[in-house]
Amino acid sequence: MSTFSRLGGRAADQLRPVRITRNFTIHAEGSVLIEFGSTRVLCTASVEEKVPPHKRGSGEGWVTAEYGMLPRATHTRGDREAARGKQSGRTQEIQRLIGRSLRAVFDLKKLGERTITLDCDVLQADGGTRTAAITGAFVAAQDAVNKLVRDGKLAASPITGHVAAVSVGIVEGTELLDLEYVEDVACDTDMNVVMTGAGHYVEVQGTAEGVAFTRKEMDELLRLAEKGIAELVAMQEKALQA
Amino acid sequence: MSTFSRLGGRAADQLRPVRITRNFTIHAEGSVLIEFGSTRVLCTASVEEKVPPHKRGSGEGWVTAEYGMLPRATHTRGDREAARGKQSGRTQEIQRLIGRSLRAVFDLKKLGERTITLDCDVLQADGGTRTAAITGAFVAAQDAVNKLVRDGKLAASPITGHVAAVSVGIVEGTELLDLEYVEDVACDTDMNVVMTGAGHYVEVQGTAEGVAFTRKEMDELLRLAEKGIAELVAMQEKALQA
Amino acid sequence: MSTFSRLGGRAADQLRPVRITRNFTIHAEGSVLIEFGSTRVLCTASVEEKVPPHKRGSGEGWVTAEYGMLPRATHTRGDREAARGKQSGRTQEIQRLIGRSLRAVFDLKKLGERTITLDCDVLQADGGTRTAAITGAFVAAQDAVNKLVRDGKLAASPITGHVAAVSVGIVEGTELLDLEYVEDVACDTDMNVVMTGAGHYVEVQGTAEGVAFTRKEMDELLRLAEKGIAELVAMQEKALQA
Amino acid sequence: MSTFSRLGGRAADQLRPVRITRNFTIHAEGSVLIEFGSTRVLCTASVEEKVPPHKRGSGEGWVTAEYGMLPRATHTRGDREAARGKQSGRTQEIQRLIGRSLRAVFDLKKLGERTITLDCDVLQADGGTRTAAITGAFVAAQDAVNKLVRDGKLAASPITGHVAAVSVGIVEGTELLDLEYVEDVACDTDMNVVMTGAGHYVEVQGTAEGVAFTRKEMDELLRLAEKGIAELVAMQEKALQA
Amino acid sequence: MSTFSRLGGRAADQLRPVRITRNFTIHAEGSVLIEFGSTRVLCTASVEEKVPPHKRGSGEGWVTAEYGMLPRATHTRGDREAARGKQSGRTQEIQRLIGRSLRAVFDLKKLGERTITLDCDVLQADGGTRTAAITGAFVAAQDAVNKLVRDGKLAASPITGHVAAVSVGIVEGTELLDLEYVEDVACDTDMNVVMTGAGHYVEVQGTAEGVAFTRKEMDELLRLAEKGIAELVAMQEKALQA
Amino acid sequence: MSTFSRLGGRAADQLRPVRITRNFTIHAEGSVLIEFGSTRVLCTASVEEKVPPHKRGSGEGWVTAEYGMLPRATHTRGDREAARGKQSGRTQEIQRLIGRSLRAVFDLKKLGERTITLDCDVLQADGGTRTAAITGAFVAAQDAVNKLVRDGKLAASPITGHVAAVSVGIVEGTELLDLEYVEDVACDTDMNVVMTGAGHYVEVQGTAEGVAFTRKEMDELLRLAEKGIAELVAMQEKALQA
Repeated sequence: MSTFSRLGGRAADQLRPVRITRNFTIHAEGSVLIEFGSTRVLCTASVEEKVPPHKRGSGEGWVTAEYGMLPRATHTRGDREAARGKQSGRTQEIQRLIGRSLRAVFDLKKLGERTITLDCDVLQADGGTRTAAITGAFVAAQDAVNKLVRDGKLAASPITGHVAAVSVGIVEGTELLDLEYVEDVACDTDMNVVMTGAGHYVEVQGTAEGVAFTRKEMDELLRLAEKGIAELVAMQEKALQA
Repeated sequence: MSTFSRLGGRAADQLRPVRITRNFTIHAEGSVLIEFGSTRVLCTASVEEKVPPHKRGSGEGWVTAEYGMLPRATHTRGDREAARGKQSGRTQEIQRLIGRSLRAVFDLKKLGERTITLDCDVLQADGGTRTAAITGAFVAAQDAVNKLVRDGKLAASPITGHVAAVSVGIVEGTELLDLEYVEDVACDTDMNVVMTGAGHYVEVQGTAEGVAFTRKEMDELLRLAEKGIAELVAMQEKALQA
Repeated sequence: MSTFSRLGGRAADQLRPVRITRNFTIHAEGSVLIEFGSTRVLCTASVEEKVPPHKRGSGEGWVTAEYGMLPRATHTRGDREAARGKQSGRTQEIQRLIGRSLRAVFDLKKLGERTITLDCDVLQADGGTRTAAITGAFVAAQDAVNKLVRDGKLAASPITGHVAAVSVGIVEGTELLDLEYVEDVACDTDMNVVMTGAGHYVEVQGTAEGVAFTRKEMDELLRLAEKGIAELVAMQEKALQA
Repeated sequence: MSTFSRLGGRAADQLRPVRITRNFTIHAEGSVLIEFGSTRVLCTASVEEKVPPHKRGSGEGWVTAEYGMLPRATHTRGDREAARGKQSGRTQEIQRLIGRSLRAVFDLKKLGERTITLDCDVLQADGGTRTAAITGAFVAAQDAVNKLVRDGKLAASPITGHVAAVSVGIVEGTELLDLEYVEDVACDTDMNVVMTGAGHYVEVQGTAEGVAFTRKEMDELLRLAEKGIAELVAMQEKALQA
Repeated sequence: MSTFSRLGGRAADQLRPVRITRNFTIHAEGSVLIEFGSTRVLCTASVEEKVPPHKRGSGEGWVTAEYGMLPRATHTRGDREAARGKQSGRTQEIQRLIGRSLRAVFDLKKLGERTITLDCDVLQADGGTRTAAITGAFVAAQDAVNKLVRDGKLAASPITGHVAAVSVGIVEGTELLDLEYVEDVACDTDMNVVMTGAGHYVEVQGTAEGVAFTRKEMDELLRLAEKGIAELVAMQEKALQA
Repeated sequence: MSTFSRLGGRAADQLRPVRITRNFTIHAEGSVLIEFGSTRVLCTASVEEKVPPHKRGSGEGWVTAEYGMLPRATHTRGDREAARGKQSGRTQEIQRLIGRSLRAVFDLKKLGERTITLDCDVLQADGGTRTAAITGAFVAAQDAVNKLVRDGKLAASPITGHVAAVSVGIVEGTELLDLEYVEDVACDTDMNVVMTGAGHYVEVQGTAEGVAFTRKEMDELLRLAEKGIAELVAMQEKALQA
């Protein structure tokens, strides 16, 4: 069945080279440049000693995310959302996904009444920006939390485990791990999977762009995603120990 | 494992009573009121002899959706999005989902350069509005297409099969089909599944609101969804024959 | 003088069939579907225990209205105002008119510091949506107030009388009561009249779309409106006793 | 019944001093400063050789209006609508009224495919800004049309007659002509009347701010308005002959 | 070098006729119509007993400005910013400049926790609207402050000196003072200079529209501006003594 | 006079270390990361074969700029302009300045009917972001133009010379070149100067934040700017030869 050949001879179940650079910028409490091949996303974690209205007085904190793409992160220039005056539906979907994914590994009670905002800005896009963003945002959030602990603002970490994400999809009948742009454009099915370090699902978002997919295909996609996320979690751990 | 008891003695794998009323309003080419229990969504299909810019001159048509909720469709009054001046991220996510789901069963080339817009407006909400909307929009779209064929504007139907949707979720450790509002609020995992009449997946969107879910739980959720959607497709068929 | 013949043999001074359905939806404190012929408007009354800034601390309440039209309530699909990002001037005019009309029969002091919001959403349009909205909103407001009284939140009703509305106009030289869409399009003068149950004027809004109208024509229009509103008030009473 | 005494000993049926200054600014095709007592509105008529989309190719022209109020035209500073990012419902209502009123005396076919935009900007407000605006805009429009005729762009005037407007109202039981601000604030009923030079009605907009008004009161209000408008038309004529 | 001949035989270093009319409108605490030739700007100063969030509780006041242009202040009609729903970049630049310029001569501590808003609205434009606005706004601000002192709300004036502004530029190789519209359009370099009564710089904003300018040219432009501003300051003094 | 001591022993007339990295991202026709000390701006040049409406059919091209700052480029997180729904006045001022500065060294006729958009996005801010942006955007524009020439789309370069920019200011009585953030916050006068490679002025924007500045101070600021810009031009040349 597996007849699609990938750029650079990459195997169907192989991630692109991943690079995680901590402290990429100097002001944020956590600042990580994450690269999945040519996709490059700057993820910063900002700590603010306040919470949004729905959490005020609750004793709980909040974790949220915003996502953006530089106008020329892509092959052809896209509109600047700030100039157009609104964020696209796609942008909102992605930033809501990142926020939910990170909250899945946070005990908001232990965070106290403060907010961690994860800004994920795509400097260069080549497919998989939202999954790179989640994977990098976790490292930035971890750095920000470690600083809160070091500074004595938190007695213990509110983070309950790792979270990472990867895309999988079906191109010309072949299930592939970690789609790059040319594969994403050509795929029939595109699925983003977010899992914890313990191997449980946080989000599964599968979409048939062309023909609908079968249960058997979904099982194979989930297998690939599980493999990829296990590798990404290992890379997060390694980066955090550096 | 199954200890959660549902309102009205509903079984874990049982849909709420579903009612599909065609020709609910008089102007639209297709107009369907769909009810999943107390959830009531008015789905209209409007045919316009034009296409959006990205389809102009392509010979292909377009199918798109918009979603709205009347301010007092819910327990407490929500802001009117038109008054606030923008659609929420949630609204945009839902209408993008409905549009993709319907396009999955349309051959846009056969539709010709025209647009079918599916307006899904929630008159009363009790959980599952987006899945009711997809299921009802299909019937409205079918009515609109049948009218195009009857009027001689289309030689053959561009619709390639049924599409329907249902929510599933895990409440207090029990997997349930077709969540109503009180279940939705209490659930740990919420999954919306969209499938074709042939039993293939168009969309799978699962989210862990509380604890992450296991592969075994996901398998059971998918089984419930498959059962529910098969029943919904049968109801669509019956309604269309009436 | 009267040479214009109406659809279905309706007399010049005859209302369309009016139907008032209470409790049309389940969540709102008042929920009324009102039909003037093929015009169908869902009017809900929502009670909130807060007031807008200009009433805070005044001991007085507030009554306000919002108006919307489903995109395919009309013959051809209109833009969704939430998607376009703003309400049209027409929408704002109408909702301001509905709010003023209802406030005319409310003693805001007796309401206490709470707000009643009347949401009037047109499901199907065939002329006269704003007058149907006012007439239906009164019934919804009455139901909401009765509930406040029943729940012991109000000792006495703040409602001082009925309010109802009807359109009148001149088509081909004939003065007509309760214009339907085809008459509205053809009319030279269009007038919306809002009156109390006591037969006094709350609002008179007459517009010459074509030739300006004479004082004699206005007198006849006012006579027709008075007749129609008396009948509508009787129907409100009957519906509220059901 | 008539016990309310007006500022400066003005009679109940007396207009404030009206002053019409043509050519108030130099660039516009028509530019009129109109004063009703302390109310001062700058009305400019701009001719553009294009029409909005709904008139393109029709051979007809268009007449439209925009209304604004300088932030400190009023006793206390109001928000600048441009800074707030939207026009209020009140502003939109007024500019729609001005536009309709002017179109009532224009034969759009004779205007040809061009647009006359009437900008009515309130420099100083003391009640009656919309009626002053209509009365002044007519003179500005007349100047602009005369210029089109003089320049040979129009063979004959598309203006079919005068149009002018005045407010009337009931204060402490007394019907008054041309309300100034303190009267407007105190009135129970406020009515704006727009009439042609021939004495026919273009618009009647009466609102009970406090108690509803009777038919007898309306008759007296209409009588006052008719008297005032006849005087305003005479002043327009005189100003245009200067 | 100086070969460009100006309209009306004006010398290169000569201001247009300047006219300053105080109390142009009645409601504002300061209200000044300033004219630089055919440029006419209405500058009002409004005092409000509140400050923006960044000054609350500081004991300091705030001085800010808003700028607008009536749609037909110019040769051809411009869009109304309130209708378009946002202020242009140009408008924002200008109002920020006016605000900074006025704050340069205010001791905000002495003003106390109140805000002076300077609304500068261009009734007629012929070049130099922002410099006329600054020069006129100073007089309006002075009138508003004098009223605060007279009313006993301020013990001493928080104004530390005069501020005035003028444009200079290079047209066909000639440096000119106070550009009117036709010169502004033709100029290679345009510079706006804001100075205090003591002859120090508050703002210098020079832009090469065509060829870049030399240091020698800049020196001559600064000399012209200094001369013009000294004359404007004298006119402000004279107007304030009237 | 010079008593203010700078961080790291930097001399008053010394630039921070400047680094220019070409080809920082892969998709844009020109992509430059420019660093002035800790200030880091990504400048991309995008070529599109179309022009804005005001240039259509003119045979001329257009050069424009957009500016943005990542939310956590700064010490404390700023709002994301795309989320807030509009660009601030500051952002608009800066991007207009960058656009004008670049156009000053472009012969738009020679560019042909195409647009070069310079996106300047601040990854890390430490003062002088707009001057770094102009200096880096020139290099990106040069790369984009060289590519057009290499690809045979342009016969000759439309670039007429270098353009670069630097900030100068007065801190505690000392004139300083290239202000970093702590100096910018403390300065009394802040001036941004844009000059060509030939040493002529394109823009001079000086603002007294505290006390107004004298002519003598301005002369010294201009001398410092001229020195700094000459050095920046040399660095641009060196970077372009690499």
